Amino acid sequence: MEAEFLRWLRERTPKYPGLRLGLTDDAALVDLPGAGAVVATVDMLTDGVDFHLREVDPRRVGRKSLAVNLSDLAAMAARPLAALVAVALPRDGSAALARELYEGLLALAEEFETPIAGGDTNTWDGPLAISVTLLGIPSPAGPLTRSGARPGDHILVTGQFGGSLLGHHFDFVPRVREALYLAQNYPLRAGIDVSDGLSLDLSRLAAASGCGAWIDPRLVPIAPSAHAMANQRPESGTPLEHALGDGEDFELILALPPDAADRLLADRAVGTTLTRIGQFVAEPGLWQSLADGSRAPLVPRGFEHHSTASR
Amino acid sequence: MEAEFLRWLRERTPKYPGLRLGLTDDAALVDLPGAGAVVATVDMLTDGVDFHLREVDPRRVGRKSLAVNLSDLAAMAARPLAALVAVALPRDGSAALARELYEGLLALAEEFETPIAGGDTNTWDGPLAISVTLLGIPSPAGPLTRSGARPGDHILVTGQFGGSLLGHHFDFVPRVREALYLAQNYPLRAGIDVSDGLSLDLSRLAAASGCGAWIDPRLVPIAPSAHAMANQRPESGTPLEHALGDGEDFELILALPPDAADRLLADRAVGTTLTRIGQFVAEPGLWQSLADGSRAPLVPRGFEHHSTASR
Repeated sequence: MEAEFLRWLRERTPKYPGLRLGLTDDAALVDLPGAGAVVATVDMLTDGVDFHLREVDPRRVGRKSLAVNLSDLAAMAARPLAALVAVALPRDGSAALARELYEGLLALAEEFETPIAGGDTNTWDGPLAISVTLLGIPSPAGPLTRSGARPGDHILVTGQFGGSLLGHHFDFVPRVREALYLAQNYPLRAGIDVSDGLSLDLSRLAAASGCGAWIDPRLVPIAPSAHAMANQRPESGTPLEHALGDGEDFELILALPPDAADRLLADRAVGTTLTRIGQFVAEPGLWQSLADGSRAPLVPRGFEHHSTASR
Repeated sequence: MEAEFLRWLRERTPKYPGLRLGLTDDAALVDLPGAGAVVATVDMLTDGVDFHLREVDPRRVGRKSLAVNLSDLAAMAARPLAALVAVALPRDGSAALARELYEGLLALAEEFETPIAGGDTNTWDGPLAISVTLLGIPSPAGPLTRSGARPGDHILVTGQFGGSLLGHHFDFVPRVREALYLAQNYPLRAGIDVSDGLSLDLSRLAAASGCGAWIDPRLVPIAPSAHAMANQRPESGTPLEHALGDGEDFELILALPPDAADRLLADRAVGTTLTRIGQFVAEPGLWQSLADGSRAPLVPRGFEHHSTASR
């Protein structure tokens, strides 16, 4: 539904001069009258879809509800400014649940110096739903978007991919600090965070930039949990397939000119492993190199369960 | 739960220099590095609490989800800048429901020149929940808060009160234009919107300002629907009781110095009826004048179903 709905929504939405990025990137960019701009993003997590409340400590749910938004801001190289939290709590034990959610949320908020500026705490007969809106400001280098990659740019990724469902999707550290450092020190051309799958989100970045992307599958950093999932259920795919399609890695995909990519890969100050997995190409689509050196199409895989309209 | 939870949350939240109003007023005021500030508020509406989806056109639900936030901005005399929408849709018929919600929402957004900057559209096994975050900028006169009323200031209200449940709570026009006009032309000292009940929200405004409030009940503008509800169910209270305690009127309570109040009441440019119903007094608490001219305590009445932490 999401892609079609987004098309409908974009058509229905009038153009506003102050809205520079809306419904296209990981977050919206809203100009302020006078000067400056604000980056804003929202994500809602729901019981039974993004987590199962029976099986997880609510603190991890609260943490994740903010973390996914921090990841969206990282994708734009924006600095977090303040968060607003709306929550619908099941009636039974709602007071205790609210506190546990907030304990997880506040701990991460403090880590990223992000005040909770407002909230709306409701009780109802439905399951738990929690929605966080995060405001930020673009880095001095300007907002990073999905549309700036050019053929020849190298594709760099942070961290490792696959098997996030085993726990990483709750406990990941959003790449905010890395994004701010990189945006300040390197000519980043485009960025996106991997929420729906490395191959799917890379194909989105390439499409938004009007080019294609080629990767060498042997270079993709595969998380230990991707191996674990492939071992547990071999029919679920190879470790590489998990890495390319699982999603919820919340790592960054970045586009940089080759020389900048070289410098960045030699930079020990980043703190997070960066890996070059391929490059952007003129021909649209997603491509992979095979063992014999030839190129073949790579079908983007991933899921849409977050369905963020601003993504 | 809400008041106690808010106390707990305020204690748990570290102080941030950039957050001038958080968890106290109708909206938060967030300073931007450099210059300027953003006003932000969030409200979530849930099926079975704020509306009954079986009984109402989803367009009215979508409209209300934005309207309640516009009302919060009006209470701060802030101009709307952009909205973000997160929605959890019941699986059955979710695509049609999403469009209907947005049709109501977009129509009101256009009326108030407010772009929908981002969204998150989810489908789940739960009932409908919709959360709107609204960003705004303070009027040139600065943000209107709850804490600026002084003893001697007059109490003015927009519109009429009571019986909102008969339909007004869906169809009210948020007092954004009025608030901006008034903030620009009059020395408004404090403001709040009536979401939970005229008497309850007035008592909150007075308490935040460190004073009390006295009203003449005969001056309270009573809506026709308050009379209708009292007629339908006499045991539910008198029309005046409905006006004082029903809530969801989404009218403004304003504090002004007496001479400014006089000028304002003679101003035909406002477009909305304003009524003087009393004044702020030094003695804390809420007071009413009786028929014999004496004063008696007035017990604040209202409901907390919105439970907005930022309110």
